[in-house]
Amino acid sequence: MQAAVYRGPGDVRIESLPDPEIEESTDAVVRVTHTAICGSDLWFYRGETDYEEGAPVGHEPMGIVEEVGDDVRSVEPGDRVLAPFSISCGHCEFCRKGLHTSCVNGGGWGGDESGAQGERIRTPHADGTLVRVPDRYADDEDVLESLLPLTDVLSTGHHAAVSAGVGPGDTAVVVGDGAVGLCGVLAANRLGAERVIAMGHHEDRLDIAREFGATDVVSARGDEAAEEARDLTHGGANHVLECVGAESSMGTAADVARPGGTVGYVGVPAGVETTGFLGTMFGKNVSLEGGVAPVRAYVDDLMADVLQGTLDPSPIFTKTVDLDGVPEGYEAMDEREAVKVMVRIDA
Amino acid sequence: MQAAVYRGPGDVRIESLPDPEIEESTDAVVRVTHTAICGSDLWFYRGETDYEEGAPVGHEPMGIVEEVGDDVRSVEPGDRVLAPFSISCGHCEFCRKGLHTSCVNGGGWGGDESGAQGERIRTPHADGTLVRVPDRYADDEDVLESLLPLTDVLSTGHHAAVSAGVGPGDTAVVVGDGAVGLCGVLAANRLGAERVIAMGHHEDRLDIAREFGATDVVSARGDEAAEEARDLTHGGANHVLECVGAESSMGTAADVARPGGTVGYVGVPAGVETTGFLGTMFGKNVSLEGGVAPVRAYVDDLMADVLQGTLDPSPIFTKTVDLDGVPEGYEAMDEREAVKVMVRIDA
Repeated sequence: MQAAVYRGPGDVRIESLPDPEIEESTDAVVRVTHTAICGSDLWFYRGETDYEEGAPVGHEPMGIVEEVGDDVRSVEPGDRVLAPFSISCGHCEFCRKGLHTSCVNGGGWGGDESGAQGERIRTPHADGTLVRVPDRYADDEDVLESLLPLTDVLSTGHHAAVSAGVGPGDTAVVVGDGAVGLCGVLAANRLGAERVIAMGHHEDRLDIAREFGATDVVSARGDEAAEEARDLTHGGANHVLECVGAESSMGTAADVARPGGTVGYVGVPAGVETTGFLGTMFGKNVSLEGGVAPVRAYVDDLMADVLQGTLDPSPIFTKTVDLDGVPEGYEAMDEREAVKVMVRIDA
Repeated sequence: MQAAVYRGPGDVRIESLPDPEIEESTDAVVRVTHTAICGSDLWFYRGETDYEEGAPVGHEPMGIVEEVGDDVRSVEPGDRVLAPFSISCGHCEFCRKGLHTSCVNGGGWGGDESGAQGERIRTPHADGTLVRVPDRYADDEDVLESLLPLTDVLSTGHHAAVSAGVGPGDTAVVVGDGAVGLCGVLAANRLGAERVIAMGHHEDRLDIAREFGATDVVSARGDEAAEEARDLTHGGANHVLECVGAESSMGTAADVARPGGTVGYVGVPAGVETTGFLGTMFGKNVSLEGGVAPVRAYVDDLMADVLQGTLDPSPIFTKTVDLDGVPEGYEAMDEREAVKVMVRIDA
């Protein structure tokens, strides 16, 4: 089969890899029909984190089940499924707790496992990991495009909002206008926030934020941005969604939080090396909640809203490529020409 | 009057300062009878944080009210009182929320205000700040010695336990065997923890931890210590009290936390410059709660327990000096010859 592999910074290529096969009785093999390129893929693409050369990439798979192991009960060949960016067994302490990213039997896509930016993936723990799309929606292209962000960014934005404690009537500030930040706006709005203030630097993305329910946008930079957000909230917000993971954005999140408030953070903190934000948070008793999003815990609820038409994150896909177009998709993400790239694969 | 002032790193002296006077109608002047030297005083004493030369020091006052302004209602001359390390008005948004350290009218002792390591202090916002000791206990020296830690370290250890979410039947790990860590053990025990694991490096202090209810102690260092604590908790604790504020202790707290658990942190993060702990916490969805302790919110409850004889933090005072002995007290704290030093002042 054909799949995207990492060959070094700035170099993702489509290569031939062996077709994945059932190895354990709990595995399934899925033919990938839709996947995406993630902001977090840019960390290795830019050489900022290590990634094994020659390893497959991608972690947002949706597709059709082709084959299942003898012990798989919840899906069968022909089913349309999607999977979170992390693999989980569904029955350990942490899966039971809704913390599927800490599954003791789990892991991630890519590296030693199949990558989602390829024609087929072996799914370990298929019963715990795969989520079936109901048959009546299984071939509705519009629905599938709206469901694809559940594999990562919508669920991650939702995790930020949940971690920040957003509820009905609240005021929330969302730091970051990438795909996760935009999904954070959508999630805060869905959770009943009365006021959602989106902070970012790109007018086209802030337009999507408005479409997703932002009542205010702040496009200034640095201290000025934090001051503007504090003015809008009369001294800071009790609920702040940090959706970037950079040192500056952690600082902004700390600065715009109201004393006693909560920052929900979901951006991989790969760029955070100093802790100025920590002193700010300590002095104000601002809580820091969140982490890597336990997508599997949220997918069922979010899918229900997408299927009933009240939740649609698909505007984050501003570019679509086929499998051969994956390298071009990385470039577009890297150069911020696309908010998020969808990959459509016809086998 | 005589009072301790800062004259540079390693140099705290007793000098003559003008007697404080009522300046605002909400002020009180208190004659200090008991105070203490704090681990956080060592930051400026060691030159690790800035402090104005010639400024008075100390922030843990207990004494007798000498004079009150016209608008003070809750205390009168002759009352025995204590005050938290932060001044608070008692009626702003944050005081109402129990977050007195973020009081919009508040501040701290020392610097431009009086220092608690002196014969007298002017107390701004006396109604909001001062806590009266009931008359029947007002001259009981044993009780006063047990109440003095409420001004800072007991309330701070309690804040760590509350922030870490400790409740009946829980297992808690306390990182640090200084006065705050020991008070954290006491507080976790008081909140009903079934198992309290104290981590530290000093046998004499760990003995106090045992006296305070620690069921296990871990005295190894670094990775070995974290491994031992994880073994004792079968994979980490859901409730971790970080009571130091150093980079290594933040790392240990993150390492010993169970996925989905909470670290309550109360050590001023003056020594934390990098964020290795942040990646660890992010990956495990460990929450970071706490900050500078809103002592005033906790004093009434803790005092009730001290007065009924079920709570006694006084063993943390392993050395007592008079006002002239304050410089010697700093030395003893700096050289770890004393856990915490009490200062008795006879006017």
